[in-house]
Amino acid sequence: MDIVIRNGTIITAGGIFPADVGIVGERITALGEELRPELGRRLHGVVELDATGCYVLPGAIDPHVHLQMPAGHYVSSDDFTSGTVAAALGGTTTVIDFVEPKPGEPLLDALAKRRTEADGRVAVDYGLHMTVPTWHAAHPKELDALSEVVEASVPSFKLYLAYEGLRLDDAQLYRVMKAIAGAGGLPIVHCENGPICEILRAQAVAQGNTTPIYHALTRPPRQEAEAVSRAIDLAALAGSSLYVVHVSCAEAAARIAAARLQGEPIYGETCPQYLTLTVDDLDGPHGERFVCSPPLRSQADQAVLWDTLARRDLDVLATDHCPFTTDEKNGIATNGRPRPDGHADFTAIPGGLPSIEARLSLAHTLGVRAGWLTLERWVEICCTNPARIFGLRRKGQIAPGLEADLVIFDPDRRLTIQAGRTLHERVDWSPYEGLVVQGWPRDVLSRGRVIVRDGEFVGEAGWGRFVLREQG
Amino acid sequence: MDIVIRNGTIITAGGIFPADVGIVGERITALGEELRPELGRRLHGVVELDATGCYVLPGAIDPHVHLQMPAGHYVSSDDFTSGTVAAALGGTTTVIDFVEPKPGEPLLDALAKRRTEADGRVAVDYGLHMTVPTWHAAHPKELDALSEVVEASVPSFKLYLAYEGLRLDDAQLYRVMKAIAGAGGLPIVHCENGPICEILRAQAVAQGNTTPIYHALTRPPRQEAEAVSRAIDLAALAGSSLYVVHVSCAEAAARIAAARLQGEPIYGETCPQYLTLTVDDLDGPHGERFVCSPPLRSQADQAVLWDTLARRDLDVLATDHCPFTTDEKNGIATNGRPRPDGHADFTAIPGGLPSIEARLSLAHTLGVRAGWLTLERWVEICCTNPARIFGLRRKGQIAPGLEADLVIFDPDRRLTIQAGRTLHERVDWSPYEGLVVQGWPRDVLSRGRVIVRDGEFVGEAGWGRFVLREQG
Amino acid sequence: MDIVIRNGTIITAGGIFPADVGIVGERITALGEELRPELGRRLHGVVELDATGCYVLPGAIDPHVHLQMPAGHYVSSDDFTSGTVAAALGGTTTVIDFVEPKPGEPLLDALAKRRTEADGRVAVDYGLHMTVPTWHAAHPKELDALSEVVEASVPSFKLYLAYEGLRLDDAQLYRVMKAIAGAGGLPIVHCENGPICEILRAQAVAQGNTTPIYHALTRPPRQEAEAVSRAIDLAALAGSSLYVVHVSCAEAAARIAAARLQGEPIYGETCPQYLTLTVDDLDGPHGERFVCSPPLRSQADQAVLWDTLARRDLDVLATDHCPFTTDEKNGIATNGRPRPDGHADFTAIPGGLPSIEARLSLAHTLGVRAGWLTLERWVEICCTNPARIFGLRRKGQIAPGLEADLVIFDPDRRLTIQAGRTLHERVDWSPYEGLVVQGWPRDVLSRGRVIVRDGEFVGEAGWGRFVLREQG
Amino acid sequence: MDIVIRNGTIITAGGIFPADVGIVGERITALGEELRPELGRRLHGVVELDATGCYVLPGAIDPHVHLQMPAGHYVSSDDFTSGTVAAALGGTTTVIDFVEPKPGEPLLDALAKRRTEADGRVAVDYGLHMTVPTWHAAHPKELDALSEVVEASVPSFKLYLAYEGLRLDDAQLYRVMKAIAGAGGLPIVHCENGPICEILRAQAVAQGNTTPIYHALTRPPRQEAEAVSRAIDLAALAGSSLYVVHVSCAEAAARIAAARLQGEPIYGETCPQYLTLTVDDLDGPHGERFVCSPPLRSQADQAVLWDTLARRDLDVLATDHCPFTTDEKNGIATNGRPRPDGHADFTAIPGGLPSIEARLSLAHTLGVRAGWLTLERWVEICCTNPARIFGLRRKGQIAPGLEADLVIFDPDRRLTIQAGRTLHERVDWSPYEGLVVQGWPRDVLSRGRVIVRDGEFVGEAGWGRFVLREQG
Repeated sequence: MDIVIRNGTIITAGGIFPADVGIVGERITALGEELRPELGRRLHGVVELDATGCYVLPGAIDPHVHLQMPAGHYVSSDDFTSGTVAAALGGTTTVIDFVEPKPGEPLLDALAKRRTEADGRVAVDYGLHMTVPTWHAAHPKELDALSEVVEASVPSFKLYLAYEGLRLDDAQLYRVMKAIAGAGGLPIVHCENGPICEILRAQAVAQGNTTPIYHALTRPPRQEAEAVSRAIDLAALAGSSLYVVHVSCAEAAARIAAARLQGEPIYGETCPQYLTLTVDDLDGPHGERFVCSPPLRSQADQAVLWDTLARRDLDVLATDHCPFTTDEKNGIATNGRPRPDGHADFTAIPGGLPSIEARLSLAHTLGVRAGWLTLERWVEICCTNPARIFGLRRKGQIAPGLEADLVIFDPDRRLTIQAGRTLHERVDWSPYEGLVVQGWPRDVLSRGRVIVRDGEFVGEAGWGRFVLREQG
Repeated sequence: MDIVIRNGTIITAGGIFPADVGIVGERITALGEELRPELGRRLHGVVELDATGCYVLPGAIDPHVHLQMPAGHYVSSDDFTSGTVAAALGGTTTVIDFVEPKPGEPLLDALAKRRTEADGRVAVDYGLHMTVPTWHAAHPKELDALSEVVEASVPSFKLYLAYEGLRLDDAQLYRVMKAIAGAGGLPIVHCENGPICEILRAQAVAQGNTTPIYHALTRPPRQEAEAVSRAIDLAALAGSSLYVVHVSCAEAAARIAAARLQGEPIYGETCPQYLTLTVDDLDGPHGERFVCSPPLRSQADQAVLWDTLARRDLDVLATDHCPFTTDEKNGIATNGRPRPDGHADFTAIPGGLPSIEARLSLAHTLGVRAGWLTLERWVEICCTNPARIFGLRRKGQIAPGLEADLVIFDPDRRLTIQAGRTLHERVDWSPYEGLVVQGWPRDVLSRGRVIVRDGEFVGEAGWGRFVLREQG
Repeated sequence: MDIVIRNGTIITAGGIFPADVGIVGERITALGEELRPELGRRLHGVVELDATGCYVLPGAIDPHVHLQMPAGHYVSSDDFTSGTVAAALGGTTTVIDFVEPKPGEPLLDALAKRRTEADGRVAVDYGLHMTVPTWHAAHPKELDALSEVVEASVPSFKLYLAYEGLRLDDAQLYRVMKAIAGAGGLPIVHCENGPICEILRAQAVAQGNTTPIYHALTRPPRQEAEAVSRAIDLAALAGSSLYVVHVSCAEAAARIAAARLQGEPIYGETCPQYLTLTVDDLDGPHGERFVCSPPLRSQADQAVLWDTLARRDLDVLATDHCPFTTDEKNGIATNGRPRPDGHADFTAIPGGLPSIEARLSLAHTLGVRAGWLTLERWVEICCTNPARIFGLRRKGQIAPGLEADLVIFDPDRRLTIQAGRTLHERVDWSPYEGLVVQGWPRDVLSRGRVIVRDGEFVGEAGWGRFVLREQG
Repeated sequence: MDIVIRNGTIITAGGIFPADVGIVGERITALGEELRPELGRRLHGVVELDATGCYVLPGAIDPHVHLQMPAGHYVSSDDFTSGTVAAALGGTTTVIDFVEPKPGEPLLDALAKRRTEADGRVAVDYGLHMTVPTWHAAHPKELDALSEVVEASVPSFKLYLAYEGLRLDDAQLYRVMKAIAGAGGLPIVHCENGPICEILRAQAVAQGNTTPIYHALTRPPRQEAEAVSRAIDLAALAGSSLYVVHVSCAEAAARIAAARLQGEPIYGETCPQYLTLTVDDLDGPHGERFVCSPPLRSQADQAVLWDTLARRDLDVLATDHCPFTTDEKNGIATNGRPRPDGHADFTAIPGGLPSIEARLSLAHTLGVRAGWLTLERWVEICCTNPARIFGLRRKGQIAPGLEADLVIFDPDRRLTIQAGRTLHERVDWSPYEGLVVQGWPRDVLSRGRVIVRDGEFVGEAGWGRFVLREQG
């Protein structure tokens, strides 16, 4: 063996037990009691990591991140290197980002281009979802190409019910879902009713209501719920499964639960921000920073989301990590120049929050320690379910033969969230600034290599690989 | 008094009791025991109708009929006279038909024009719903005109989620609902997902599947349910109430019931065809005749619809009466020429069924006598609720001061449904052909005038008036 | 005619309309426009009551009262005369009280005895429910007698799931329900789990927790809900309908609603105290006065009960009127002597509250005016449904031929609730003391006789009769 | 290592992966790739089991069996040896049986006595549930002893709502549940309403309806549902969790699901007979054999139970194994003499069915292969959940440190169920006679010892131990 992790408590979705983990090359080769170096293939040079007092988890998987993503005058501030280093430090060993083809750009070309941005720069393994924007959804040839996209190890497709240029109308949504199902893929859908939000935004602006709180007021929970219901119904008509991203409110969660009770293959995701922040943050002194879509909701919604996660009607905790700096949130374009339109209102604020680094710890502190989640369920929603749902057959569990993506998590370590100090995301603020979390990754392994040691990044940009994924 | 109805059993939504009914002019002036001619204002010429053994009901109201309605190469075969005579014979003393403005035609102009088609020709009172088609929904000026339409005694607006030219997209639907709510009106919505149906139709045709059963298979229950959910959600967002027409299936009914349980102001209507016929009729020797939208469903759906009517989660039994002759159903255009496209498939069959005459009796036979409905509930869904919901303040009940629209209904009279013989609709077939019903109107009064006497029409075209309606 | 009520607005469960009401002898003989004395049978001596600005309602029916009811050392403080006078003044023209047979006393003997207490003393009509206590439930001969009880015009049977001596175990409950169903009767059930309450009481007392609030804490909502579920399930097994008295909490109401959604014939009643008072009243300076069973609950429960009444999953608003004086509530036995056990704790406080006089007005003020109930629904739950459910075929509606029990209700009259001053119940306190209600009966008629005129009682003890009732 | 299982596919509740399993002594010490003998502690004598093509499962746990159980004139026909040998052959390596104290017999005495019957005779590990009969429930001293019972490794308590002598009334049920919760134990409850069943039985017998089908007709689903609701409500009042044994019907399952949706800690168990047999079996030529309680239900119930297992609202598949021979089922007492009462009717038939051997295979054949269950869920309900719920901390999973209870299951092996031939239960018939199952255990290990080899029992009576259990 090359590495042995000793004396830890293994936490998996299926149970908790003390055991050592043996690693040869990139893979876990053994779980056992008192695994000894001399039992390994090599007698010399075995690294031993003592996990006494720590949990040993499967490397966490964040299936919803937006690194170096262009958004109008802005580009999300973490690039593939900074974002994946932060991910690694937080215990996340695989991220799934997005390909966003431009009008006229073939899906496979866009995929190739996005891969050139990431390959050689990522610190952990990564995958990609393929966005199917409006233009592509309307072109039968592009839909025919979905099978090739799946074969290129991109079996999940992001569809939008909001945002002009991305939004699919019903006919497009149905056709794309049917094509995805035919290709063996999974549609993952941003469920907000774009046209309704746009009307409400225009009304708010016309009335001079442009402060950040109007971002939330113009995207009410009911429009999100409507979009969720529509996606569920159209998936059923198209014979497709469905993954609903970033469920933010009780009413949307209820519609997913109702469909699941009928046995329908619907998956749901929520994010740390919807479990920990509220709409009041949009009305605070830095309300502009908290703009994201769907918007932050109420404390009552939070309780329902935690409960729905706990009783298994939501499956995944992902981040939708999409950081913008305070300058950017205040209208200084990413190139440093003031926004051309010269004034600020909520419709011009780049939407998105950073969470890629703190996810696992936030869920431990506010989910496990607060009594909402068992340790097993925590691992299931952060590690195991993302792997299952997105076809990462060699990840998300701890078992012989699987890739040695592992986290040695110290449940007692306390850390105060501070952007630029305790966090390593490339963004000068955090929505969780000042929060004291309990439990943080000590060491992290990616495919058998130690990339975080005692809280320090010791890996390298370029170590990460594009992952193979199989759907269905 | 001018007329006294003696010895009948009065059936209202609120109760059953024996009483005489006294009428002066157009109004009921008294309910009483042994009302005597000499108690009336006039001592001479009082007409006495002996209702011994009969029920005395409020005149039934059919809030969903399509008379002389153009539909492509066809025109529905009952005109305002023949249709309202048939209605009268069946116990219906008020119908509500539709105005269907053409692109570019102002709503009020279209209303005026439609009224000229009906005024002077109707045998019973009538009202109109204003259809708001796509063109009008997109023109702010037309939405501004909704208040004037309401003031013109047309406070209900038909909106479509299917059919090109009529179908509203989400933004239009929201804006129109908001405008209707602002004008104090009620949106009544055809809930089917048009784009999905069109895709399924095109696929069926492309595969050569053009027999009538494909009409049902290309409009599955789930797409109707989706449209119902969307209408409910958008009504909630727009602050509007909602009336869902012709609910055909269990899943759609369930979504209405769920919204009502949350206290939302949603009304639901179903029709005799969905309670008595099934999808198998589309696969029979004359399948083409049974084409209507939404399509006929299963027996299981029927049971759910009856039950939902009984426990008050559907409010109204209307007909969606829209007759076409067997020639027309088989592709001979209304002007007698073969359809130009020269061949038959389900997409070319004019959709709609006749039910205007038999509704009250069908509901008595298959609803009351079969044990689904009480007599009071029968009257409530056929007479009282349509009046309440559509603002007919002087109709739908039996009380002093209200208009003397009354039906003397013989619960023991048996009649075999035969188009052209026992029925008087101007159409040469009936979907209920051969069915023996029990219970049929003997005499019918419209505003104090006897217009049906012992099963014969004794009124006149032109007696009916355009009714005053107030919403809300 | 003998009496004509002019110019009022008639409110019934089925609608609202202006009309005069004509009365001959004990019955309504006509509803009409401008009914004139000269139209009556007699030309002289016709009384005219001008109801301008007032509602004309069917006389209210209170199907749940306890007059001069022995309860240990106490007797409820209103006797048949004082209680029915107060009822009349509050607009209630029929009450249904109880027969409570003693062990060994045949049901019919107990009925005869109870009738001698009421006949000749009641100011309004009255009926009786027959309690079937433990002793009788265990004697097959008594169950055989149920048919005779029904024939004696007592077709409803009170069963208890709490209180030793009254409580039926499962076998008894099933057998009695089956016997009642066989006799064509209706079981009305006090749903609390007696054994559980007794254990909790004993624990509280053992811990020295004897203040009134422990009355509520030892009868938690869940035990009531359990008893409701059991009664529903056993009624289904026995093939019986069921009427659940005094539903006090959300959870119990939810179980009734769930059964009704399945089409089961379950009726539910709640009382003014559960809609207006809360558990906090038991913790106030006169907590002892507010002891009743089930106990007062929370504000959240109130909202659910109003909503459930409004959407028709509860049917009746009755009072469970059972007054005890402040002395009695404080342990001075009804005969004036201190309670023998010499000290007070909640287990010794006689349970029950007065509401017989203010019910109609409380429901108008806090139900109709607060927006929970329509006027029609107010009449339905206070007047019409009690008549329907308890077989009072000649009462509860306004129609020719029915008994002339009528209330002229002034919706603008304001009155401050003050025991002994504005109220006439024979009890020196009111749970609603100081509350300003809006809307109060001006005149009340019982079988054609004016018994309240301008808020003063002008009837006489003994006018009331034992009512004929038919079940089913 | 002492034993290495090579080349199998490990199936756990948490996932599926190929790996070898290494065993030292009684425990699993390693999971790994290509575990080699020379890696073990001992270089010689390592047993290798080749599991190519097979699944490797945790040993199944049957938490509901009745071996050598006295029941009136009968004793269940499998004793601790024959029953546990059959269990082992079927892949079950732990059973939990019952202690049934007699009136007056202290719980701990009864436990000691029952242990003397099992210790030294069982072929696999076993545990015991403590039945708390009526007599004990009524004696405070016995309830005080519950903590000692828990300390004696019996932290689960069987309570009955049916059967005289066993049945607890509400006060007893509440007190016992509260005492169990206080002692850190889990109540497991037989939910049928005994008094109702007894009345229905007596009626059937009185009417001469004594054939086996009346066993089912006198124990209708609604009485079971009622008992489930009551147990849930009283557990909530007592602050206790709850395990409902042998859920047989849709209505009972629905009540459990509803409580779980509210977050209540309720577990549910069903049995193979309720998933595979129906009430019609009671009406067949050997109806008497199929008598068990609750009785067999309908096919519709089966579908609901499978679905509820699949979507996790039932947790465990146990057998309620309680075999009686055809003679016994026909009234020949276990001692060989005809039943003293000399005639047969359904009330005298000893109730219970054998299933201990075929459970795992039946669930594979009719659950996994039929598409109801995933492999992971199959293992979860047969192995993992029983271990979790009943405190078997060292069993039910496959991980280093856990006891080496393992099944090498050949998913392709077909076997025709034949009592006395392919089955080894000591009973001359099987309810599944003739059924061809697919998938059967090939080898079985109990604490590191091979006790079944290639379908033959190679262990020994007395190998099994009384298991340590911790609740909560």
